[in-house]
Amino acid sequence: MRKKAIVALGGNALIKEGQEGTIHEQFANTRDISRSIVKMIKDGWDVVITHGNGPQVGAILLQNDLARDVTPPMPLGICVAESEGLIGYMIQQCLSNALHKANVDRPVVALITQVLVDEADPSFKNPTKPIGPFYSEKEVMEIKEEGFQVKEYPGGWRVVVPSPDPKSIVEGEIISKMLDDDIIVIASGGGGMPVIEKEGWGLDGLEAVIDKDLTSERLAEAINAELLLILTNVEKVYLNYGTPNQKALDSVKLKEIKQFYKDGHFPEGSMGPKILAAIRFLESGGKKVIISDVNKGWDAFKGKAGTHITK
Amino acid sequence: MRKKAIVALGGNALIKEGQEGTIHEQFANTRDISRSIVKMIKDGWDVVITHGNGPQVGAILLQNDLARDVTPPMPLGICVAESEGLIGYMIQQCLSNALHKANVDRPVVALITQVLVDEADPSFKNPTKPIGPFYSEKEVMEIKEEGFQVKEYPGGWRVVVPSPDPKSIVEGEIISKMLDDDIIVIASGGGGMPVIEKEGWGLDGLEAVIDKDLTSERLAEAINAELLLILTNVEKVYLNYGTPNQKALDSVKLKEIKQFYKDGHFPEGSMGPKILAAIRFLESGGKKVIISDVNKGWDAFKGKAGTHITK
Repeated sequence: MRKKAIVALGGNALIKEGQEGTIHEQFANTRDISRSIVKMIKDGWDVVITHGNGPQVGAILLQNDLARDVTPPMPLGICVAESEGLIGYMIQQCLSNALHKANVDRPVVALITQVLVDEADPSFKNPTKPIGPFYSEKEVMEIKEEGFQVKEYPGGWRVVVPSPDPKSIVEGEIISKMLDDDIIVIASGGGGMPVIEKEGWGLDGLEAVIDKDLTSERLAEAINAELLLILTNVEKVYLNYGTPNQKALDSVKLKEIKQFYKDGHFPEGSMGPKILAAIRFLESGGKKVIISDVNKGWDAFKGKAGTHITK
Repeated sequence: MRKKAIVALGGNALIKEGQEGTIHEQFANTRDISRSIVKMIKDGWDVVITHGNGPQVGAILLQNDLARDVTPPMPLGICVAESEGLIGYMIQQCLSNALHKANVDRPVVALITQVLVDEADPSFKNPTKPIGPFYSEKEVMEIKEEGFQVKEYPGGWRVVVPSPDPKSIVEGEIISKMLDDDIIVIASGGGGMPVIEKEGWGLDGLEAVIDKDLTSERLAEAINAELLLILTNVEKVYLNYGTPNQKALDSVKLKEIKQFYKDGHFPEGSMGPKILAAIRFLESGGKKVIISDVNKGWDAFKGKAGTHITK
């Protein structure tokens, strides 16, 4: 049996800092990333790729907003689904081209993925995740009237939405079966579409977004992965990040990282959810978590880069 | 072994004539359609659902256009992929809820689907398929400068794109495997994203759209379906449609329908591709094609509505 890994690509993986986000840029970046993933597959691993969608869903929300007078804007969950189509298609095409060039005969496909959350999640009472464009003081009145919660930031007002904790991947079993069929799967893009289970109704979508690393961890559990490789925009995990005492972590044990997490080394908006995902994964049977820069995927996988967290 | 069917939903299935296209309308329509599909599945059929995307991709193109000064517009293929995410998510959720209510334990998932076309397809030299918004005489100058082909219609100018003939479904084998694993699949939405095979490169997307019924037929071949059920906005196929001599067809043989097709009974923009799909399907081993109204899916399936075409 092949070993299974989740490769979680950061939102910055496909649109790099300073880029405009044209489709040419996004495809070029996707081709770059595909090379590391091909090497892992050649090395004998079954891989599920997950990805962020920050810049892409931001653009889709902006487009919906600017066209709202002529075509009904879609809710957030639908915009996330659109971004799964957009990004899934790019990765599916670039990765299967790269596999083909490397003479690896493995099919690749992207799935639309729903993620179960708890209706009682505290984030629904206290939405904090900013999404979409900045609004002026005047514009924000209208937005508020439509029932959105907003918060003021240095650049203006933004809609804030809940970011509930993912419980399980609705399509988790399907993805497991597909891996057994030798298929490379792209799933739970943008953290997946959050749904709750409604008595007598079934699944129902919500205006919320889920952290993509926490979702990736739930998916890693569902497929019994042994490796969770999180590729982001820093080469390593740091203690005292951004201070003169900053210290990179090369190799760290679960017990230690739990203490660092408790001590508040990892800010909520960035490294925090990645470390929480790492802790959950190792505590639920996973063997290793690697966190590294998106450009160093293969080096990190081979132990030459990144922070390696084990039990 | 269960029998396999493709259910091809028309673009009008999810946004009905006169509707604005809000997400509530679309979900309500999707729930309606799901009921017929659940009955087919309960009846022992493996089902792959395909769907149009006309109104949805039209909205996405319009949104891209209106936001073009603030965020880079995505090409057509990407917009189709986004619509596959949007519609796939809706069908996936509504159908799995409906199955659950009917005590049928079958998982449902939507796939991002690429469709291989021929670079030498004549439509690339003569694009005729109108897409996206209408432009004024003044606006169309800019559009033309960007390299788009345009055509004048009664309502104004529109971009026209090639509509090449689909050759095969890139993810056809994957979909077959998923059916073997008891999974209900939603695939090749909006006719799928057209790709060509480029020597030394692999698959590459194109600015074109593919007729969703012709794509559905290729998928039906790939999975060895025996039934192709095309649900659209007319109850039957008609000879001399729209004339005083209009005559509905209830049951018709392949040989007859080929003659009617040759005789020009089925206009290119509407019934033509459906009939061509039917002919191809029956000539490649399919047993039956049913064409009927989207609200009569189950009746049509049971032989009480629609036009039934057999060898």
